[in-house]
Amino acid sequence: MKIGVFDSGIGGLTVVKSLLHHQLFEEIIYFGDTARVPYGSKDKNTIIRYAIEAVEFFKNFELDMIVVACNTVSAYALSEMRESATCPVIGVVDAGVLATANALKDKKSNILIIGTKATIASNAYEEGLKKLQFQNLQSTPTPLFVPLVEEEIFDGDILTSTLHHYFKNKKTPDALILGCTHFPLLSKTLQNYFGEKTLLIHSGDAIVEFLEKEFYFSKKYRDPKLKFFASENPDALRKIAQKWLYA
Amino acid sequence: MKIGVFDSGIGGLTVVKSLLHHQLFEEIIYFGDTARVPYGSKDKNTIIRYAIEAVEFFKNFELDMIVVACNTVSAYALSEMRESATCPVIGVVDAGVLATANALKDKKSNILIIGTKATIASNAYEEGLKKLQFQNLQSTPTPLFVPLVEEEIFDGDILTSTLHHYFKNKKTPDALILGCTHFPLLSKTLQNYFGEKTLLIHSGDAIVEFLEKEFYFSKKYRDPKLKFFASENPDALRKIAQKWLYA
Repeated sequence: MKIGVFDSGIGGLTVVKSLLHHQLFEEIIYFGDTARVPYGSKDKNTIIRYAIEAVEFFKNFELDMIVVACNTVSAYALSEMRESATCPVIGVVDAGVLATANALKDKKSNILIIGTKATIASNAYEEGLKKLQFQNLQSTPTPLFVPLVEEEIFDGDILTSTLHHYFKNKKTPDALILGCTHFPLLSKTLQNYFGEKTLLIHSGDAIVEFLEKEFYFSKKYRDPKLKFFASENPDALRKIAQKWLYA
Repeated sequence: MKIGVFDSGIGGLTVVKSLLHHQLFEEIIYFGDTARVPYGSKDKNTIIRYAIEAVEFFKNFELDMIVVACNTVSAYALSEMRESATCPVIGVVDAGVLATANALKDKKSNILIIGTKATIASNAYEEGLKKLQFQNLQSTPTPLFVPLVEEEIFDGDILTSTLHHYFKNKKTPDALILGCTHFPLLSKTLQNYFGEKTLLIHSGDAIVEFLEKEFYFSKKYRDPKLKFFASENPDALRKIAQKWLYA
């Protein structure tokens, strides 16, 4: 099995980390649109246009599947990508919704969704969860988390103030959906902030669960091949990949 | 006089505000590359490529001059833009260097330059100031200021922690160069942090000074025409312009 993983930039590496850990693929082709990142503050039509261009790029490889690691793209452009693609396209939003539903037995559970402005404005997680009878939903865009992670600020005063800024009026949730692939790098801090009882939903782990449950993936591949492409400076992406994937 | 103002996104509006205030032009055509913003974390070659595309866009208008409001573009792509353009191209870095030199009589003055990662890595301000015999230079990238301004966080705990994070080891400067067009929106907070003795160098005011001193601009135009273009969602840009320019 040969898979393409698409993200607006480097965030999708957290999904690749989960895929590598579970050895579901023989070869992973990663494409980050680093020349135009971030997507999370951009317009729906722009996001769709860029996503279709990514599908065209992936046509250079004979892929068995495309995983959209970016929550913003998954929220806005999945159906358009499917129309253009010649292989299945799956996204982290659907996977995150199912992982949340599988983890929470009580439909009255309080679920908090965080993500970029665009992802939260799309209501994609809410719509998915409501279809599965979850009604107790809160959501808030937390766009500052992205540059904080990229600045490698994972704790300390700035982050404490930022957490307070975003969450001071929020009830402690039963589940927190990390609706942006940068956010798993803040897992420890978020878990400390909300406490051990809050379940964190991680896009990468959700995709693995989705593939195993919905697509019956079970075969394991040792030492999967990994190739990185970027719309600018692929060397910088490869360096960050070394750090994030093998740290 | 008809001028083009180019920025990676919305930041250049602070420069337009200065130009409007001083009534130097009959017509201002603003172009923000909102579909690919920000440039400050991107690669040199990408920045040059995008800047040349902006020059091509401006060829749709018969311009007398292009003002590069973006510090990152001014630092990396000015000579390439000049090669492509059919009118003069001036940038905020040269203007900021001259404004600083004009304001500081003592060549031993301590100057702190802040900007995006790309602008600071270019050393463009340092090189310009060293040519004018200023040697006491410090610089630091302050990339978090950009999303903070875009989140409309202009003071409070997050900003206080961020100021401490960036400036805790910096001497109080005689002049602080706001080397990113977003930063004038933090002027009040930065002035409070460093104290009244620190002179803030503002790209927009620097450009006006540059045009008046170096280009002998003196004619005033009442009610200049203003047109906004963006590579995505021009309506959003126009809304922010209404807010920033006329607030």
